[in-house]
Amino acid sequence: MNTATGGGGGAVLEELDREECLRLITPGGVGRVAFNDGEGPAVIPVNYVVDDGTVVFRTDLSSRLSKALSTALAGAQVRIAFEVDRFDEARHEGWSVLLRGGARQLSEDESAAAAPVEPWPGGERGAHIRMIPAEISGRRVHH
Amino acid sequence: MNTATGGGGGAVLEELDREECLRLITPGGVGRVAFNDGEGPAVIPVNYVVDDGTVVFRTDLSSRLSKALSTALAGAQVRIAFEVDRFDEARHEGWSVLLRGGARQLSEDESAAAAPVEPWPGGERGAHIRMIPAEISGRRVHH
Repeated sequence: MNTATGGGGGAVLEELDREECLRLITPGGVGRVAFNDGEGPAVIPVNYVVDDGTVVFRTDLSSRLSKALSTALAGAQVRIAFEVDRFDEARHEGWSVLLRGGARQLSEDESAAAAPVEPWPGGERGAHIRMIPAEISGRRVHH
Repeated sequence: MNTATGGGGGAVLEELDREECLRLITPGGVGRVAFNDGEGPAVIPVNYVVDDGTVVFRTDLSSRLSKALSTALAGAQVRIAFEVDRFDEARHEGWSVLLRGGARQLSEDESAAAAPVEPWPGGERGAHIRMIPAEISGRRVHH
């Protein structure tokens, strides 16, 4: 925790340090990946796991996200953002963590070796994506 | 509701039509805005309202988002994405809506005329942003 800024709405906004951000996202669950598909930014929710300091999630090979990643050269990384948050709408409190960095699609062997991630909807989702965070930041809103 | 796809995980993924998407996001609350700041995509949560078919939210004039928007010519729109979702982590169910379109910062007069939006953290947040959705899509995961 670095700084706290008083707000006019009775709540304060606090910057979270990297260690706290990693602690908050480590349980996995639902996160949101933002990427460019050539027509501007898009955001989709995905189920994710944290694997050795990286974020791993799956997507359909025919998805916009998979297509956006596949436009990169084989093995190359594409800049994406990954966001995880939890808010209490009744109490007007919560936290959010933003990771930014390169992502690439894993090979079959790499996918098999990564921590398993099970998307809720099931289905194929044959593309395993790993994002290596270069920047990690987070904020907490509380009273 | 257009299509339903059976999943291997016991849940189905259903595409939502535009009308259902608008119904889901109309109560306002917390959404997530994705934008490019010159170093790739970023995502931040914001409090928003739906105002006459558009999305209005506020941000700090010194924020990365505000800076990204202010790089556009005065009155010009910048492509952003806006995502709203609600998930039940216990039941592995929920929905998400994605809006894509142009956004621009409102003038003081326009801000005063727009539906009021009150960010939880309070503070200045002097930049009112309006996004006009060009594309609206959504999905629901349920059993």
